[in-house]
Amino acid sequence: MDLTALRTAHPDHWSKATAIRALTLDAVAAANSGHSGMPMGMADVATVLFEKHLKFDASAPNWPDRDRFILSAGHGSMLLYSLLHLTGYSDMTLEQIKNFRQWGSITAGHPEYGHAAGIETTTGPLGQGIANSVGFAMAEESLRAHYGKKIVDHYTYVIAGDGCLMEGVSQEAITLAGRHRLGKLIVFWDNNNITIDGPVTLADTTDQPQRFKSAGWAVIEVDGHDPDAIDAAITKAKKQNKPTMIACKTHIALGHAAQDTSKGHGALTNSDQNAAAKAAYGWTTGPFDVPNEVKSAWEAIGSRGAAARAEWEERFASVSGRKQAEFNRVMAREVPKKLSATVKAFKKQMTESAPKLATRAASEKALEVLNPVLSETIGGSADLTGSNNTKTSDLGVFDVDNRSGRYVYFGIREHGMAAAMNGMVLHGGIRAYGGTFMCFTDYARPAMRLAALMKIPTTFVMTHDSIGLGEDGPTHQPVEHLAISRATPNTNVFRPADAVETAEAWELAFSSTETPSVLSLTRQGLPTVRAEHKLKNLTAQGAYVLAEAEGKRQVILIATGSEVSVALEARDMLQESGIGCRVVSMPCMELFAAQDEAYRRKVLPAGAVRIGIEAAVRQGWDQWLLGERGNAKKADFVGMDDFGASAPANVLFEKYGITAANVVEKAKALL
Amino acid sequence: MDLTALRTAHPDHWSKATAIRALTLDAVAAANSGHSGMPMGMADVATVLFEKHLKFDASAPNWPDRDRFILSAGHGSMLLYSLLHLTGYSDMTLEQIKNFRQWGSITAGHPEYGHAAGIETTTGPLGQGIANSVGFAMAEESLRAHYGKKIVDHYTYVIAGDGCLMEGVSQEAITLAGRHRLGKLIVFWDNNNITIDGPVTLADTTDQPQRFKSAGWAVIEVDGHDPDAIDAAITKAKKQNKPTMIACKTHIALGHAAQDTSKGHGALTNSDQNAAAKAAYGWTTGPFDVPNEVKSAWEAIGSRGAAARAEWEERFASVSGRKQAEFNRVMAREVPKKLSATVKAFKKQMTESAPKLATRAASEKALEVLNPVLSETIGGSADLTGSNNTKTSDLGVFDVDNRSGRYVYFGIREHGMAAAMNGMVLHGGIRAYGGTFMCFTDYARPAMRLAALMKIPTTFVMTHDSIGLGEDGPTHQPVEHLAISRATPNTNVFRPADAVETAEAWELAFSSTETPSVLSLTRQGLPTVRAEHKLKNLTAQGAYVLAEAEGKRQVILIATGSEVSVALEARDMLQESGIGCRVVSMPCMELFAAQDEAYRRKVLPAGAVRIGIEAAVRQGWDQWLLGERGNAKKADFVGMDDFGASAPANVLFEKYGITAANVVEKAKALL
Repeated sequence: MDLTALRTAHPDHWSKATAIRALTLDAVAAANSGHSGMPMGMADVATVLFEKHLKFDASAPNWPDRDRFILSAGHGSMLLYSLLHLTGYSDMTLEQIKNFRQWGSITAGHPEYGHAAGIETTTGPLGQGIANSVGFAMAEESLRAHYGKKIVDHYTYVIAGDGCLMEGVSQEAITLAGRHRLGKLIVFWDNNNITIDGPVTLADTTDQPQRFKSAGWAVIEVDGHDPDAIDAAITKAKKQNKPTMIACKTHIALGHAAQDTSKGHGALTNSDQNAAAKAAYGWTTGPFDVPNEVKSAWEAIGSRGAAARAEWEERFASVSGRKQAEFNRVMAREVPKKLSATVKAFKKQMTESAPKLATRAASEKALEVLNPVLSETIGGSADLTGSNNTKTSDLGVFDVDNRSGRYVYFGIREHGMAAAMNGMVLHGGIRAYGGTFMCFTDYARPAMRLAALMKIPTTFVMTHDSIGLGEDGPTHQPVEHLAISRATPNTNVFRPADAVETAEAWELAFSSTETPSVLSLTRQGLPTVRAEHKLKNLTAQGAYVLAEAEGKRQVILIATGSEVSVALEARDMLQESGIGCRVVSMPCMELFAAQDEAYRRKVLPAGAVRIGIEAAVRQGWDQWLLGERGNAKKADFVGMDDFGASAPANVLFEKYGITAANVVEKAKALL
Repeated sequence: MDLTALRTAHPDHWSKATAIRALTLDAVAAANSGHSGMPMGMADVATVLFEKHLKFDASAPNWPDRDRFILSAGHGSMLLYSLLHLTGYSDMTLEQIKNFRQWGSITAGHPEYGHAAGIETTTGPLGQGIANSVGFAMAEESLRAHYGKKIVDHYTYVIAGDGCLMEGVSQEAITLAGRHRLGKLIVFWDNNNITIDGPVTLADTTDQPQRFKSAGWAVIEVDGHDPDAIDAAITKAKKQNKPTMIACKTHIALGHAAQDTSKGHGALTNSDQNAAAKAAYGWTTGPFDVPNEVKSAWEAIGSRGAAARAEWEERFASVSGRKQAEFNRVMAREVPKKLSATVKAFKKQMTESAPKLATRAASEKALEVLNPVLSETIGGSADLTGSNNTKTSDLGVFDVDNRSGRYVYFGIREHGMAAAMNGMVLHGGIRAYGGTFMCFTDYARPAMRLAALMKIPTTFVMTHDSIGLGEDGPTHQPVEHLAISRATPNTNVFRPADAVETAEAWELAFSSTETPSVLSLTRQGLPTVRAEHKLKNLTAQGAYVLAEAEGKRQVILIATGSEVSVALEARDMLQESGIGCRVVSMPCMELFAAQDEAYRRKVLPAGAVRIGIEAAVRQGWDQWLLGERGNAKKADFVGMDDFGASAPANVLFEKYGITAANVVEKAKALL
């Protein structure tokens, strides 16, 4: 590249873009690790975007109607950190830049949501950012429809690399965005033709523009180092009534000895080469030293949006107090006052009518009363609406001509759905829940993990949660998926036993501010086990005594979900044999673990033999069976130790021994 | 649809295709569950394929050079079962068809590999079959290059539905296939415009032909009920030097009241409607009754390939005995005699030289000596070749002009890679291994589970297996992924402690016939802990005493991988304080659990306090700490209970307390 030509053609632009490149080189060199090439290649695009288009105010980073900027290619984190620092985000100090990738800094290797203002989502696992962005854009459309254009009217911009576009989830994302003609979503593809292993063509020869067009996108191709062309492309993209992909031909590690090579993708730490690159840029100051005039120019960009923000605040003040309060409430992830009373009334009704109901159907019933009091919910399913029971009568369907609809047909895109839901929650103002079969947790996993890592309350509705699924067979029967979600930090896994516990689980999921929820729900009908109405949300304690032993307590049966009624049946049989038996319902292990020791000991006292019952693998159970004053000689487990099979559900429970008779036999063997 | 016109235009074809439709209606009605519409819609395409093109011999279903037929849309299992029954596969009896979806039958809800001949892979989780097929086609190319066209020369055919094509993994699959110009891969898209939730357009408006073209595929569009057009399309597709997608416009549940509706996707069990459909077909026999002349016509198709097979056998007999033996060996998943000696020599060398080496680097060293003795290996990485250390010097790169290359640049496609590896193994003749960062187990999970369910020995190389990854931060640091793979039935998770255990793990992975392996390998350097050379593969026992206590055994430290050297260091400190301490290395929990009780008791005797050490969550450890004669009061765990952070690895181990000092402190607290 002829850097001199670039520099002389747009000197002001050049110095600003170079500040990003120089900070990147310095921070990566100081950390002795990181990814230099991407920020250096995309500095021009990012500079034009921030200078000319992005609606933001560095002094008010949480302004709800800001444009969202998502760095899907998260390894290029120094691009984002440089932009935030240069434009004057107060927490992104030079000290933080100098502590790139160090313990306790907010400048992690990949951008971590919650670490610093301006980081809209955690990226790094490739494809997640672009998939989140579809949720951001949907949230914007939905909130705009609900609150009006005066309050919500912004764009979502994304930078994605070849890695993002090769990941399958990007296909789910772009086809979903294309289907919904999300015109305010604009993706820049960093078309540098380099991946870690070498040129992109080693592994991929996809015609990306054609691919995006096939998904219903507008496509614009530009030289990613020509600021005028980039500016024109963004201007054009903003006018589209469909999402736009701007293919930016760039040079990775522009101007460095490693330019256009896979070496340039990684950490450029050779001081001579870095010095030579800076010299070629015409950058003469020392490490981390941005000349005052350049810093000022960037800070002017950072405050460019202040007037627009003030106007927005005026507009916001002009809408009704009720609307303001609702908007502030949903943006703060606060629940409406009515929620608690609604749940209590529903629970009472369920206890009184004691229906035999699959928990997925109970979930639908609960959502029928909850969705009307929660204007912020958006529900959906990955093409299993009638099976996941996620659609309620008042939601309406989100569509091109009905942006106020609150139900999304996500299609057969479990991963894209989960990532889009995360995007909605991250945008703010939305509580997203979506369903698939629990077995397909596997497909949604990367996004489910990120919800936990980001501390956001996305809700994953996982129905058909065991061999109770029946004839579809082992490909559709989860056995390890409860363990998988429970192994994940900061994830509440609810496996309710009946309609009452299901409603309690929903109350907790919808009240959560920092923890995602997994609802594990049955296909098959279950009796109501909560015989007595309690105002208190017992599921919030994670586990509780559902049925007390009569006489001397010799056995404690601990069960979840569909196996709670098996435990109750076994208890009846044991009591008839004169063996005192307590049944503990344990709808959420994580919440039980969070109780104080006194409560845990009350629920699980020492002495009695313990049997865990769950139609899944034992992993995760030993803490309750052997730990917490339990004992290996006096504990057993009734569950699965292999994949299931294709047969009617009742046959499977019998064949795999998940029956009251087997529980009784095991209890007697232990005594 | 005008069924009469179809029927009169091609009466012979019609009766054969109708046999599929009638068996489907009968089997689904008998099971009272299943998916009727897809087999009814694709019966014409399948009939033409089997009658005119598919190279197979029902009497020799495992003929190695048969064409492969993969039903990616696995819910339409009755299509496959009907074809296998009608063409005369001996195990697919009418009795089995009548027992569709019942306990003990081979006719599961979705096709299960291993249940019946002719089921080439397990499908049902959408997108897997098409992603497997890329591996099948790669295996064919690779084996053809190695053994010659006389022995290997066949096509891979796939039927995929809208569900398969909406799943992101299909994009990874088709772009990988397009990149490698897999001309012998032919995919039929069942373009019926229906999903479970309704018309496809509810959720998707992708221009599929354009999408496939963007991935480098040939595309042919046909009426999926016109046998001549289908025949011509297949003929044309077979001549392409790139993969072909044949878009078949079909009517789901053709001729039934539910035709062209989402109801038609599911179980059509209304007897009046089913009778009406059969009447419209001109099908007059009773349930499960295929007229003799139709059955004979199908059986003629089933034996059509017998002559070609005989010719193949002659050709096979004409090649050198050495080549025959090698071919038979690799198809039987047998290891060469040299493997064991090679591993032993390597172990000896490692013990003697005692290098400090990351296990990912040790893995590369092991592969350097193993790949040359295993002609059947194909290795790869999802764009992390230099990090996963999966490429060895002798492999060569698989490419369009070098089909004998045995290393695949899979690109940033963890899921597609895992599914393609499964396809290679399923094809036969190949042992596939491929790498990514362990955290991205999440992306590959759906295919990893299927490897376990199918009982095939795919090997997943997961490097950067803990916070030891360092600066890249929590998005890249696995903490729950060991638990996730261990929770999965039939999966061996190896976490070797040094180069010796790494070689032992590879020997076990490469010798496995029915169990996939996960190799969990470090980024960071580790000392050699196996001080004494043993001929025996100690990893095969899952756990073993690495260092015995001196004096009275008061403490047992159990550790895996990078934490084994931490345990040894802690042992030295404890012994110095006069506390006798045994160190158990536990590279594979599953293999240890499979040992007899006597051995397990020998390794983990009662009495001493136990501490588990692993830089990951505790879930899965309690069976060894509290069970197996352990005791909650005398056990502890040193590991992770939250996500990691971005910082240098040594800082992280210190901050999270995964240190010898902390182990010693915990041990003393327990004593």
